[in-house]
Amino acid sequence: MKISAIVTLKKEVLDPQGKVVNQTLKNMGYKNISDVRQGKYFEIELDEKDPIKCKEIAEQICKKLLSNTVIENYKINIG
Amino acid sequence: MKISAIVTLKKEVLDPQGKVVNQTLKNMGYKNISDVRQGKYFEIELDEKDPIKCKEIAEQICKKLLSNTVIENYKINIG
Repeated sequence: MKISAIVTLKKEVLDPQGKVVNQTLKNMGYKNISDVRQGKYFEIELDEKDPIKCKEIAEQICKKLLSNTVIENYKINIG
Repeated sequence: MKISAIVTLKKEVLDPQGKVVNQTLKNMGYKNISDVRQGKYFEIELDEKDPIKCKEIAEQICKKLLSNTVIENYKINIG
């Protein structure tokens, strides 16, 4: 089963990468962009058919490896 | 309006970051993981109410700045 996880910096945390993209887009002429935030995306292929177990494993993986929960949030999508 | 874009490496392109995450997860004891691919995630806040225009701007931004269409695919979500 395929699961995907999106890891983003928390709202209160500065995002210099996003700021650079934002400024670059402004310089390119896109004046109506008010904010850009950048994050990480993971696509994980699991040998597991049960969606509940998949979700559980994904949660563990996100907490233990993919995100730093002090400064980042994660969101998991199954399937 | 909020739009998000996910940029991933094309299937044929090697993904060393994903490989490292995959191997690390295996070393941590997750034996049933068959593949991991990593990508980038962007959250863009636009001062634009029309979803069709938003989509158009997002397409342009993805093509011009956020992705390298030779080796990467992008997926846009509106709202």
